[in-house]
Amino acid sequence: MSLDALFDPRSVAVVGASADPAKWGYWLAAGALAGRSRRTVHLVNQRGGALDGVPFLPDLGSLATVPEQVVVAVPPPQVRTVVVQGLAAGARCFTVITSGGSGPQEERELAALVTSHGGRLLGPNCMGVVDTTTELRLSWGDFPSGAVGLVSQSGNLALEIGRLLARAGQGFSRFVSLGNQRDIDAADALDALIAHDATRVVAAYVEDFRDGRRLARTLAAAHTAGKPVLLLTLGRSEASGRAAASHTGALVSARAVVDAVCRDTGAILLESAGELVDTAVLLTAVRRGRASFPGGSRGRSRAVPAAVGDGALAAPEAPRITAHGTPAAPEAPRITADGTPAAPEAPRIAVVGDSGGQGALAADALAARGLDVPVLDEATRAAVAAYLPGRGGCGNPVDLAGAGEADLRNYARITRALLDGGGTDATVLTGYFGDYATANPGQTREECAVAEELGEAARKAGRLLVVHTMARDTPALTVLREHGVPVYERIEQAATALAHAARTARARPYAPPERVPSPARPVADGGYESVRALLRSHGLDFPTAEFVTTADEAAGAARRTGYPLALKAMGLAHKTEAGGVALGITDETALRAAFARMRDTTGATRYAVEEMAVHPHSVELIAGVRYDPAFGPVAMVGLGGVTAELLADTALALAPLTPGRARELLLSLRHAPLLTGWRGAPAVDLDAAADALCALARAASEHPELIELEVNPLLVHPGGAVALDAHGVLV
Amino acid sequence: MSLDALFDPRSVAVVGASADPAKWGYWLAAGALAGRSRRTVHLVNQRGGALDGVPFLPDLGSLATVPEQVVVAVPPPQVRTVVVQGLAAGARCFTVITSGGSGPQEERELAALVTSHGGRLLGPNCMGVVDTTTELRLSWGDFPSGAVGLVSQSGNLALEIGRLLARAGQGFSRFVSLGNQRDIDAADALDALIAHDATRVVAAYVEDFRDGRRLARTLAAAHTAGKPVLLLTLGRSEASGRAAASHTGALVSARAVVDAVCRDTGAILLESAGELVDTAVLLTAVRRGRASFPGGSRGRSRAVPAAVGDGALAAPEAPRITAHGTPAAPEAPRITADGTPAAPEAPRIAVVGDSGGQGALAADALAARGLDVPVLDEATRAAVAAYLPGRGGCGNPVDLAGAGEADLRNYARITRALLDGGGTDATVLTGYFGDYATANPGQTREECAVAEELGEAARKAGRLLVVHTMARDTPALTVLREHGVPVYERIEQAATALAHAARTARARPYAPPERVPSPARPVADGGYESVRALLRSHGLDFPTAEFVTTADEAAGAARRTGYPLALKAMGLAHKTEAGGVALGITDETALRAAFARMRDTTGATRYAVEEMAVHPHSVELIAGVRYDPAFGPVAMVGLGGVTAELLADTALALAPLTPGRARELLLSLRHAPLLTGWRGAPAVDLDAAADALCALARAASEHPELIELEVNPLLVHPGGAVALDAHGVLV
Repeated sequence: MSLDALFDPRSVAVVGASADPAKWGYWLAAGALAGRSRRTVHLVNQRGGALDGVPFLPDLGSLATVPEQVVVAVPPPQVRTVVVQGLAAGARCFTVITSGGSGPQEERELAALVTSHGGRLLGPNCMGVVDTTTELRLSWGDFPSGAVGLVSQSGNLALEIGRLLARAGQGFSRFVSLGNQRDIDAADALDALIAHDATRVVAAYVEDFRDGRRLARTLAAAHTAGKPVLLLTLGRSEASGRAAASHTGALVSARAVVDAVCRDTGAILLESAGELVDTAVLLTAVRRGRASFPGGSRGRSRAVPAAVGDGALAAPEAPRITAHGTPAAPEAPRITADGTPAAPEAPRIAVVGDSGGQGALAADALAARGLDVPVLDEATRAAVAAYLPGRGGCGNPVDLAGAGEADLRNYARITRALLDGGGTDATVLTGYFGDYATANPGQTREECAVAEELGEAARKAGRLLVVHTMARDTPALTVLREHGVPVYERIEQAATALAHAARTARARPYAPPERVPSPARPVADGGYESVRALLRSHGLDFPTAEFVTTADEAAGAARRTGYPLALKAMGLAHKTEAGGVALGITDETALRAAFARMRDTTGATRYAVEEMAVHPHSVELIAGVRYDPAFGPVAMVGLGGVTAELLADTALALAPLTPGRARELLLSLRHAPLLTGWRGAPAVDLDAAADALCALARAASEHPELIELEVNPLLVHPGGAVALDAHGVLV
Repeated sequence: MSLDALFDPRSVAVVGASADPAKWGYWLAAGALAGRSRRTVHLVNQRGGALDGVPFLPDLGSLATVPEQVVVAVPPPQVRTVVVQGLAAGARCFTVITSGGSGPQEERELAALVTSHGGRLLGPNCMGVVDTTTELRLSWGDFPSGAVGLVSQSGNLALEIGRLLARAGQGFSRFVSLGNQRDIDAADALDALIAHDATRVVAAYVEDFRDGRRLARTLAAAHTAGKPVLLLTLGRSEASGRAAASHTGALVSARAVVDAVCRDTGAILLESAGELVDTAVLLTAVRRGRASFPGGSRGRSRAVPAAVGDGALAAPEAPRITAHGTPAAPEAPRITADGTPAAPEAPRIAVVGDSGGQGALAADALAARGLDVPVLDEATRAAVAAYLPGRGGCGNPVDLAGAGEADLRNYARITRALLDGGGTDATVLTGYFGDYATANPGQTREECAVAEELGEAARKAGRLLVVHTMARDTPALTVLREHGVPVYERIEQAATALAHAARTARARPYAPPERVPSPARPVADGGYESVRALLRSHGLDFPTAEFVTTADEAAGAARRTGYPLALKAMGLAHKTEAGGVALGITDETALRAAFARMRDTTGATRYAVEEMAVHPHSVELIAGVRYDPAFGPVAMVGLGGVTAELLADTALALAPLTPGRARELLLSLRHAPLLTGWRGAPAVDLDAAADALCALARAASEHPELIELEVNPLLVHPGGAVALDAHGVLV
């Protein structure tokens, strides 16, 4: 069912209306009345009263017409009664501000009651809903109008975001307070914002992801639709806190999973309300001005630069994502001549300021966030130099060295030259501009005119202009904002917002695969023997092995396997540390000695006699899958060996994987150069390594009873990939 | 000579005074006149005129009394004449605003002229000098009064810092614009601020470090004096940009050197004006309120917690730094039971807010910066719970869950309980407080009273209270600031400032050693043979080797060295890659074959026949020294091996090193657990490793002709440390 009745009801009833500004019922009623020109507003309070000339009716049964939406702000014990009355009156959309009863069960029953009538319920225990484009203000607090749609599980955070947006000249298109999400959940609300034309940027604060995969698909869909999603969440869930039973468990934290999901879907994960607002302001500006912003397309196959948030991302080329979520043509990271990985192509930023110091700090802040501040091309240098005094610098940053002070219009002239120049993708103006009229009010008109020229120059160039200024709330800044130029008080805000925008522009959204619907027959245990059998059946390569219980059986197995071989005790948690592994056994005498010693030390009753895997130029990886409570199976691959934990060089993605995705994960490791031919060594068989990861991820996806499944080490070498050990952890 | 005449002259003359507000001469003259009640002010302009009733005199010769300071704001060609006149008139302090002549040489001569008369010169090409405690405002722009002393090479950056300080309720004690530093330089100016009582925090923007070691000693002295120094600088000097001739060159960037110097001196290196102001505001609050802030002292030997910025840092225990800069008792990083390094003890922060979402984001922002948000102790939980409604959370973060809304005084009660509690060192109040009166002006008085209680509670507890609020410029925030409570608009600002303060509080300033005054006889070249001899003479251990030119000589040497051995070709830049290294040669036949092959491949004329160094449980390090243009020799140690560049796990310090300092560097590596007994392996001989670093650093310090000197690998093992290869790069 569509959520039209939530965002633009033809009629609304506020139950629990009040004339007392100290009560929620007052703000809801007053907010509803503010939309009277667009919709019928009913105010209900069983004790009577009136607000702004509108009398309170005794109950929903007294309404002359059907209320499309009912806002419930009565004490919890009365909520169910109000909802029943509302359904009887024909209402099919309920926004429940108060908590919905005595507990979760009662709330779930309330939601079920509404949905069984074909209706929808927001909350309970929520702050309400706002749509500034339909004059709907069914909440407490200020919600300035603008282009940002917000879904939030925290009311105060929504108010904070609103304050910061207003200070930046932005505001909300829609606000949905999720409350306890008994029916309408984060993904529902996000879907509604993504589909909303006036919402140019979507923001969300989500504590409880529910079905993480559905949410991830929503995020990917948003990116494809040109609506960047800015996500705030908590970093330390119960999952990340609990003791991990394997390396995989330790390396796959809840936060790392959310990081990976955002990277893969093109969503932007932020740390704070402030960072979210800074980025939202930049993204709304890009969209408004239709300015393009590059997304790693320079020098690649795309003919048209990708634009953040205006739908151009997916447009200029054949779709890169196949129906199965496979990237059509994954690009390996560029490797430089000396074997070190090069950074993905970063947007090139021109910096201009009236102060060498501020310009240089701006350049450093941009570079520190992975943005490129390149030397300007010859033509641009010449265009800029025409307006500079002798000692001005036309490198990058451009140092006006007084040229702006001498003539404010030089700010516009030089910035236009940079925006129009061929060598950069965006321009940052840093420092003083915007503040001239503060010391000298006589300059107000001139400074505003220059601000207008700056906005126009950016619009015409179709490129992004960002201003950092020491000024605050001056007329020139208002002009800049009206022209869609984002303005920041601190250079690090501008740099962070640019970096986030660049990252989402570069993202190729990867629709996360569905969970495997029908689990296979559960494995008996998480020991090597069971897990090895499972993984072999999925195509993973292991050395030849036989499982035995006596020394004689071991000797017999060894005759078939051949020496040198390895002997491993089964059923131990940490068999290496417990003395349960003997490698490189060269003959039967040594085998029998090792067997006797191992039985004494470990008391194990079952052993593997295994071929030794010796491969020159091999690299040890660790690979695993962990079941995340929200996102399901998450695949991990990292550099292995004894220092794996110290390196913490890992990459994650939702399982199952495609071979292309698995290759991308491998190549995203910091140590990827070891795989591709480090210092003259032959490259390992990346396809075999990717296939091994796919097999592992597929096996784990079919076996949700294994909350952790790990291959450690996975030996990858020029001729293939072989698993040398594996185990699982049962639920 | 003291700089009293710079900051508090009994008389000042402004030459180039003007009555036209569009000219610098106006602002300097008006600023000087503002201090008329404290000092005699002469205004000079050869064309006559007057300002504010004070007539302009024709020249300095016309003055009735000696001007203690002369401010020179005349066109460059006249500067020297004015200075000569000033010296004749008895002036000994000159602040030169305009550039001082036609070029650097003329400026240097001008400075020499002044200093030869026993005087001092600020500038030329500077913005002037301000001392708000002596009513001295000899500059352009607003300089709000406060407790922050600023030294800056950028005028606009000073103005930006001033704006941001003013918005945070702080300002400047002194401001010194350095200009071209022809006499008074950054270290001089910093010395003057450190000695200045009213300056509680010192800030500096420095582009050009001049004598970096002197500056570093100044920074260390500031920390010892309880005056934290906040440093802004540029990240990309010519040095960091130039192509490096060795791994050491690549791994020791100019930025990394400044990082190391700041870490060692306790100075705080910041990214932007905003970050500097946030941290300065926190540090002035700590000092004003005498609140203590822990510096890694908890659970250690210190009886009294160290306080940032109030001189207590150095006081409560015997000096930790000996006259030679050796830490008296270096503490090794704590290693946990499983061998992973534990973070240094972080300050423990209590978080309280009226919103679960904001509280959780605050906790995450603090934790992300290395601060600890621990579970509260039982007594504190009980004290907090007394004021919380049923659903409020008394974990950490504390969720007021409406208790604040119900009664504003609960903010003060609960915050006081946290400040007084035993388990934490500082408290962060996050979210809504400060904004109640915005929606409801009737609450203004009550909210201000609560703000006062909060300030009092922090003062009484002697602990730091930090407020993050969505409000801006409300009366309650003014009250908080008056009580020395830092207030931030964004939680990440509060968290970053707290983290910086914690880091400087933990620092044990390490006075950097002087450069070695008398260089030894220069080495002939940077080849292995020369460098090996140099390093051996400093006590570094190498395998036995003989240098030969023919196969017969090699065979002879091998008979003395014994097999297995290594053969290395000399005179090659990258001998391994060039086929100039053969390892594990087991007999003379193999040696002769290797020799022949190597001579064919490399054409080398000289070879080393070297004992094979085989040591179980060894770790390969890379160690080097690079001459930094400002800071002189900088020692580097890092994890070596073929993946050294991928790991980039390095530590730096100014050379020469003491053994204690060298140990600290080794133990600060991310891979330090490999050195101290990883997974049951024996620990390497850390003392031997430290001694080897000291020998290398000493050798480099005595040989400035080697701009890079490198041992790679330095093999450290349980029985010692041995250099397996070494080379240098001559200037």
